[in-house]
Amino acid sequence: MGKNKMHTHRHYEEENEWGCGSWLEYTMVVVLASVLLLGSLALTLFWVIYYHNGFAWREDLSKQFNLHPVLMVAGFITFSGFSILLYRICRCCRRIYVKLLHTVFHALSIPCVAIGFMAVLDTHNLKRPEAIPNFYSLHSWIGLVTMGLFAIQFVVGFFSFLVLLCCEGATSAFRAALVPIHASFGLTTFMLAIAACVTGLTEKVIFTLGNSYSRMPEEGIIVNAIGMSLIALAILIGYILQRDEFRFRAHVLIRSGDL
Amino acid sequence: MGKNKMHTHRHYEEENEWGCGSWLEYTMVVVLASVLLLGSLALTLFWVIYYHNGFAWREDLSKQFNLHPVLMVAGFITFSGFSILLYRICRCCRRIYVKLLHTVFHALSIPCVAIGFMAVLDTHNLKRPEAIPNFYSLHSWIGLVTMGLFAIQFVVGFFSFLVLLCCEGATSAFRAALVPIHASFGLTTFMLAIAACVTGLTEKVIFTLGNSYSRMPEEGIIVNAIGMSLIALAILIGYILQRDEFRFRAHVLIRSGDL
Ligand code: HEM
Ligand code: HEM
Repeated sequence: MGKNKMHTHRHYEEENEWGCGSWLEYTMVVVLASVLLLGSLALTLFWVIYYHNGFAWREDLSKQFNLHPVLMVAGFITFSGFSILLYRICRCCRRIYVKLLHTVFHALSIPCVAIGFMAVLDTHNLKRPEAIPNFYSLHSWIGLVTMGLFAIQFVVGFFSFLVLLCCEGATSAFRAALVPIHASFGLTTFMLAIAACVTGLTEKVIFTLGNSYSRMPEEGIIVNAIGMSLIALAILIGYILQRDEFRFRAHVLIRSGDL
Repeated sequence: MGKNKMHTHRHYEEENEWGCGSWLEYTMVVVLASVLLLGSLALTLFWVIYYHNGFAWREDLSKQFNLHPVLMVAGFITFSGFSILLYRICRCCRRIYVKLLHTVFHALSIPCVAIGFMAVLDTHNLKRPEAIPNFYSLHSWIGLVTMGLFAIQFVVGFFSFLVLLCCEGATSAFRAALVPIHASFGLTTFMLAIAACVTGLTEKVIFTLGNSYSRMPEEGIIVNAIGMSLIALAILIGYILQRDEFRFRAHVLIRSGDL
């Protein structure tokens, strides 16, 4: 417990040592990431409502499809992205709260992804006169891999970092060793989700616009803008996770027994 | 110099402490990555030669286009990927050699990317009766961002890690601080290149196969396989870079004045 206090103390000291430049950079980067996370979802919503007539369930398959991009972006980008950012935003709260919030945000993305997935399955299976085959496209394969990795990350993270807290002392070395692996696969999953989204957007825009895509109609530019905001997020989140100063030092704190 | 020796010495000791499991994992992961880096290029070559009649320059635009995917994969995936892996493969050579080889491999990808880019520009501009507009697609925007990041990484890396060696002592703190930033943006650039490739593949396969893509013809499966090998690389390279044990400790060695 004494050791723990020391670490926490040192941590706050380090934080107070931040110069004005670091704070400015930190604030700008976190604000920009938040704007992009919400902005990409807003743009996707605008796109399907304005150009594709909004939502439905079963009674209109083409409207039901619209749930797919919106819910996938909501779950895999906005919720998951904020969940990752949390570790950089909540610099002063107790770690167990950050961890629980991290879990809650990721848990929230599960229903989004599940419903978004069911929506696109329906649009394939219920299509008449003939059903569209499932899982033929590169996009759908990337999507399956992304959902698989996400599920593994969630289950492993949940058991290791929350359930194993029941016997804190005995599992702390194991948990500390897992943190960098969990963090790295988390970033990879986020990048794969972005790859899934940009291939999905490319498919959809070519299915809808065909050759007129090359004449840069309004809708094409909107879709490209959604894609580019996701690419900007890939760069920004990659940068934020790398910056040691922005980090909460999860493994140090776990080793020191804080959680 | 004495300090430097000490660090190098400690480094080798650590290496010798590796258990059998670590070596096995290291070997498997590096071999698998090499197979995927060469395999994705081989598959791309097979695809354009077997299904799209190979290569040409200007006299046949559709064959000239084939240079684009092949050279982009060669430059941004195979050469760049091996260049990144080098830091994990060459565990015993002197660091300055690894660094030079890293530069040479990335330098080799420049002509690939340049010619691959010119090839696709030609197929747009020389198209008759009407030229195809440039830079309309999400794919091309992602491609431009990737090439831009790559250029920045190359120039900054070249000047900081090679040219600044002229005044070693004075620049070592700066260089050490730059290493994690360079490494993280390097991984991001690699991920963006993969995003560019999978959107390009998606476009091309839909342009060629249209609706029959959903019936899973041979060519569709080949293209999906190219895409999946790139996705496997994203996961594997992300994992390798994260494993502290596989790392050469660039910043420690730079700080200790080795280079
Ligand atoms: C991380 C996010 C995403 C994941 C995991 C994902 C996953 C999937 C999966 C697994 C399928 C196959 C369904 C089937 O074959 O029955 C699919 C289909 C589809 N998705 Fe997504 N998707 C994502 C985002 C998007 C986005 C943003 C769009 C943009 C419009 C999109 C467009 C499509 C389209 C057009 C299809 C039907 C054609 C096909 O099967 O490729 N997806 N998606
Ligand atoms: C990292 C790799 C890649 C980069 C940086 C890249 C970059 C680009 C750029 C900048 C353009 C626009 C050219 C113009 O508008 O005049 C383009 C076009 C194109 N690329 Fe790629 N590309 C890459 C990989 C691929 C791959 C693997 C394919 C697979 C076939 C592909 C297929 C296409 C197609 C079909 C076009 C023409 C349609 C369009 O403009 O979108 N690309 N690429």
